[in-house]
Amino acid sequence: MEELTFRTAEERDCGLILSFIKALAAYEKMSDEVVATEELLRKWLFEKHSAEVLFACENGKEVGFALFFHNFSTFVGRAGLYLEDLYVLPEYRGKGYGKAILKRLAAIAVERGCGRMEWVCLDWNKPSMDFYRSLGARPMDEWTIWRVAGETLDQLAKE
Amino acid sequence: MEELTFRTAEERDCGLILSFIKALAAYEKMSDEVVATEELLRKWLFEKHSAEVLFACENGKEVGFALFFHNFSTFVGRAGLYLEDLYVLPEYRGKGYGKAILKRLAAIAVERGCGRMEWVCLDWNKPSMDFYRSLGARPMDEWTIWRVAGETLDQLAKE
Repeated sequence: MEELTFRTAEERDCGLILSFIKALAAYEKMSDEVVATEELLRKWLFEKHSAEVLFACENGKEVGFALFFHNFSTFVGRAGLYLEDLYVLPEYRGKGYGKAILKRLAAIAVERGCGRMEWVCLDWNKPSMDFYRSLGARPMDEWTIWRVAGETLDQLAKE
Repeated sequence: MEELTFRTAEERDCGLILSFIKALAAYEKMSDEVVATEELLRKWLFEKHSAEVLFACENGKEVGFALFFHNFSTFVGRAGLYLEDLYVLPEYRGKGYGKAILKRLAAIAVERGCGRMEWVCLDWNKPSMDFYRSLGARPMDEWTIWRVAGETLDQLAKE
């Protein structure tokens, strides 16, 4: 009998967190963008507390993970929960674990008084989009994310 | 001679912050979505510290504002700076204040060791997009934001 439980990641889990991050990046065809290291994760997650990590465990083994933090909506006037990463190991899919993780996160959001939960999805990822739609989520099609990074950010800061 | 300075918002500024939020919402044709109040801003900005507010001041008068918080990139392995709101009063536009605010935020991001700065823009807002592009920012066209809010969020949490 399979049992799904959740646990909050601790500092000793940085290697495991990084392995999930790399697995998700490979799925998204973005492996070359991963420059995160265990050391960086230790600093930003467990010293600066920039984000939180939740593991979904089947009979005690970590089979999925979610990394999230709080954003803020000026229109709503309160924080929201932003889901940066959601991933279930391929061999454990089709069991409803992705939905279970999202439901757990929704419960955390409501417990903390957040007005909404948000995440992004790649436009080619139709299976995920169908799944999100089935949960009542809606795409914010009218908005585009803009980014300044790396040297361009440094230059903007210095000019 | 006009002088632009910056100051960090304090708790006594909640009324002013709300007036900027409402002015931006009106510009975005989204006034009906603003449910924020001074009390909510006091709680989430100055008790829970969910976000920070920077005012741009011309000769001491607040003429623009930016509300921002930190997000987190798993690929980069560190926090980023996320700009939720940027607004300059219409009568003070065309003086480079928007760019000055973005440069100040970029400097804050770099000072704090952030790998990138991000924000969203409505797709019909061509003047803003041209402006962002001129600063070296790029649109993350392949990503769509998904959202669960209000009753749908409550239901997902309870099911």
